[in-house]
Amino acid sequence: MNTNTTAYSELERRFARMSHLGDAMALIGWDTQTMMPEGAAPARARMMASLRTQLHEMLTDPPVKGLLGAAEGESLDEWRHANLREMRRDWVHASALPASLVEAHSRACSACEQEWRQARPAADFARVRAPLAEVLRLTREIAKIKGQALGCAPYDALLDQYEPDSRAQRIDALFADLGAFLPGFLAEVTRRQPAAKSGPLGPFPIQSQRALGLAMMEVLGFDFHFGRLDESRHPFSSGAPDDARITTRYDEADFMRSLMGVLHETGHALYELGLPKDWRGQPVGRARGMGVHESQSLIMEMQACRAKGFLGFLAPRAAQAFARDGEAGWDAETLFAVSMRVQPSFIRTDADEVTYPAHVILRYRLEKALIGGELEVAGLPEAWNRGMRELLGIVPPDDRRGCLQDIHWYDGGFGYFPCYTLGAMTAAQLFQAARRAHPALESEIAAGKFATLVEWLRAHVHGRASSVSADTIVREATGGPLDAEKFKTHLRHRYLS
Amino acid sequence: MNTNTTAYSELERRFARMSHLGDAMALIGWDTQTMMPEGAAPARARMMASLRTQLHEMLTDPPVKGLLGAAEGESLDEWRHANLREMRRDWVHASALPASLVEAHSRACSACEQEWRQARPAADFARVRAPLAEVLRLTREIAKIKGQALGCAPYDALLDQYEPDSRAQRIDALFADLGAFLPGFLAEVTRRQPAAKSGPLGPFPIQSQRALGLAMMEVLGFDFHFGRLDESRHPFSSGAPDDARITTRYDEADFMRSLMGVLHETGHALYELGLPKDWRGQPVGRARGMGVHESQSLIMEMQACRAKGFLGFLAPRAAQAFARDGEAGWDAETLFAVSMRVQPSFIRTDADEVTYPAHVILRYRLEKALIGGELEVAGLPEAWNRGMRELLGIVPPDDRRGCLQDIHWYDGGFGYFPCYTLGAMTAAQLFQAARRAHPALESEIAAGKFATLVEWLRAHVHGRASSVSADTIVREATGGPLDAEKFKTHLRHRYLS
Repeated sequence: MNTNTTAYSELERRFARMSHLGDAMALIGWDTQTMMPEGAAPARARMMASLRTQLHEMLTDPPVKGLLGAAEGESLDEWRHANLREMRRDWVHASALPASLVEAHSRACSACEQEWRQARPAADFARVRAPLAEVLRLTREIAKIKGQALGCAPYDALLDQYEPDSRAQRIDALFADLGAFLPGFLAEVTRRQPAAKSGPLGPFPIQSQRALGLAMMEVLGFDFHFGRLDESRHPFSSGAPDDARITTRYDEADFMRSLMGVLHETGHALYELGLPKDWRGQPVGRARGMGVHESQSLIMEMQACRAKGFLGFLAPRAAQAFARDGEAGWDAETLFAVSMRVQPSFIRTDADEVTYPAHVILRYRLEKALIGGELEVAGLPEAWNRGMRELLGIVPPDDRRGCLQDIHWYDGGFGYFPCYTLGAMTAAQLFQAARRAHPALESEIAAGKFATLVEWLRAHVHGRASSVSADTIVREATGGPLDAEKFKTHLRHRYLS
Repeated sequence: MNTNTTAYSELERRFARMSHLGDAMALIGWDTQTMMPEGAAPARARMMASLRTQLHEMLTDPPVKGLLGAAEGESLDEWRHANLREMRRDWVHASALPASLVEAHSRACSACEQEWRQARPAADFARVRAPLAEVLRLTREIAKIKGQALGCAPYDALLDQYEPDSRAQRIDALFADLGAFLPGFLAEVTRRQPAAKSGPLGPFPIQSQRALGLAMMEVLGFDFHFGRLDESRHPFSSGAPDDARITTRYDEADFMRSLMGVLHETGHALYELGLPKDWRGQPVGRARGMGVHESQSLIMEMQACRAKGFLGFLAPRAAQAFARDGEAGWDAETLFAVSMRVQPSFIRTDADEVTYPAHVILRYRLEKALIGGELEVAGLPEAWNRGMRELLGIVPPDDRRGCLQDIHWYDGGFGYFPCYTLGAMTAAQLFQAARRAHPALESEIAAGKFATLVEWLRAHVHGRASSVSADTIVREATGGPLDAEKFKTHLRHRYLS
């Protein structure tokens, strides 16, 4: 141990230990959603709560504060310095709040979430009004305290939990640009798109869907020596070092839905597997936040795989997987037409690529207003419906298809929504930069060759982990800051050309 | 909190936290053997080592010693008192040794185990002689120190890790009795048994074997709301509260091997699922040790399921599972004849019910002599072969089929072997007591009804957890101490009647 970095080294030791516990929790979380027998759920919840408390106590162990201060006086190279910055971020988020507030918030969230599970199917917003108001009250308090600790505005402190160092001011500008563009663009796309076309009809046996998914994961560069594909009710990507686990849900009537979901999660997994091995177990070695993470899934799904080039590669292989060779409809044009259908709809998770950002912008505006105190819970349904009319031109017939649809707020998740669309914008901008660097990129992808794209992402995104901000990653990878124009270019090219 | 049990309550809180971490480690251990992608193995090993260190630090945290002392002055009811005794046992085993010795032992074991993996297939005992001598040297030191801390002989301190409170003196007497009986009994059985008979011939498709295994698990009373059956290279039983996980390995040529293994592991799982819910997460709520655990698997496999009664229930269901209804050989007599074949052999894990205890008695005698200093590593092969001749009348042609066959010693596992045969003896004695209490027991089992047996075990074994010693469990369940005569009666009845 270098005696000049004693405090820093001790922090590395402690964070490595915490990281191992965090990895264990991630694997058990995977198990909960894929393998756990139903009856184990209550015992499992208690176990996870206990592990979370343990991790929190390790992070807020009294010596940590002094070690962070002492390490700041030590001579550290760039990555160690960044690591120390990320350690402090973790510590501030964990230690800023009094334990009583954390506990009250956690109780309020689980009470509210339980009510929401009843309220949503019944479209009964009145039922969640009081518990959501309580969650909001506590979240505002948390945002204020964390904002003071981090030196930023309250809502920015919530963003920082998911998208470190991002600020509402920057998102405001990006979303204002995109929000102004979308309604007109949407009108033009829906006006010009041909009548709905149906793709190949099922049933598509699950075993064949799985085999096709595995094969396409390998095409993208996923190495099954270091990961798995399983099933779960809600698809996700998780795992531990050298152990990337993604899941999907199969629909016998629609193979594209599961397949595109698998390719999306494969993008997340390739990011995790591409993080630098030397910094495993340290905060600086983690993925850079949810926006960048989402960009890695969307660059695979939306930029690479939903393009006509890849669909031309996919079509005959899919036909073969389902033993439907020679039938009509197994061609790039049909798959593209089906996959690119644009239609304003009420539910975010069913939305297409064009309308999805409108859903996110709406939620972003509303949650910022809720945290800022310009909007109260009682006014949420009306504000929601007004926003839907403005951005998508439709008004949900009830709150089930309106402000009750997403779990996020009811479970205390404020500050997460913008990541989805920041990810989509980042994906478009990164893909355009990769194409500039490698003019043959799209023809390679159309031939099922992803190595160039993955290597470019490793060099410019994965390998940087959390050593710099998301903004720096984007600037240095693409030559400029995140810019809505790039995403608009992508949409125009895909839907109007 | 009762102010009279402040220290005790604090210990309960701490042990609950440790238990949750232990459960997490058990689930991840399950994952390692069933789900983990191969490439994750090195990272997984580091994660597990880190979690083990964390758990060890929690157990040996300085305040624990004082809390144990203070709690002994508090007024505790019977179970809390027993819980405190088990907490102290955990603590003594964890804290008796200096960290340097634990580490040296751990390093010596993994070095020796690695050599053993090369030495076994090559039948090259010379290769492991030095590393095993080092493991033995350190194990003797550990045994001596733990013996002083526990107030028992060194070898007893090793036994105590697996079979709490058991003593070599008692095992000596039991094994002397059985060891004197076995050679003559074996000669008589092999002389009288008919010529080898072959059972139904495969292949038996794995899917059908799995379906039959699941069905028979349900017959025994396994509730899949609280558990799973999976595949692994080495079958085992593991899990967490309300979450029993057993595994098997399928052989397409032999369905009985996997099926009987599944029923064996189901016995382990029913024990875990039957532990008292009120004492979950506390040391007193755990299973009572490896001997009792083995008795619960063997009571299902050997006492209940390999009996002609159950085989008569199984035979037509197995025939149906493999779509072989109406073919010859699918009857209790044939399955029994195949399953009861006795034949001295070199490898313990392939041994039948009659010769298995001879393997265990040999290992017990040798490991006791090794720890006691009457035998050194250099003399092991010769002592092994002499014992095989004496107990089984055969001498292995090489050390691969002799003293190199089991991983236990090479990985530092001294004191475990006797549990296998203590379990077999306990199973026989418990079964005979259950039959006395319920004269219809065997006819119920022959009709596929296990509720009476399982309820009896819940009341007399499972529900007692670690509140009393294994000896007390046996005495109170059967009316007397563990007695080799009961096992001999079982063997005589099954093999000579």
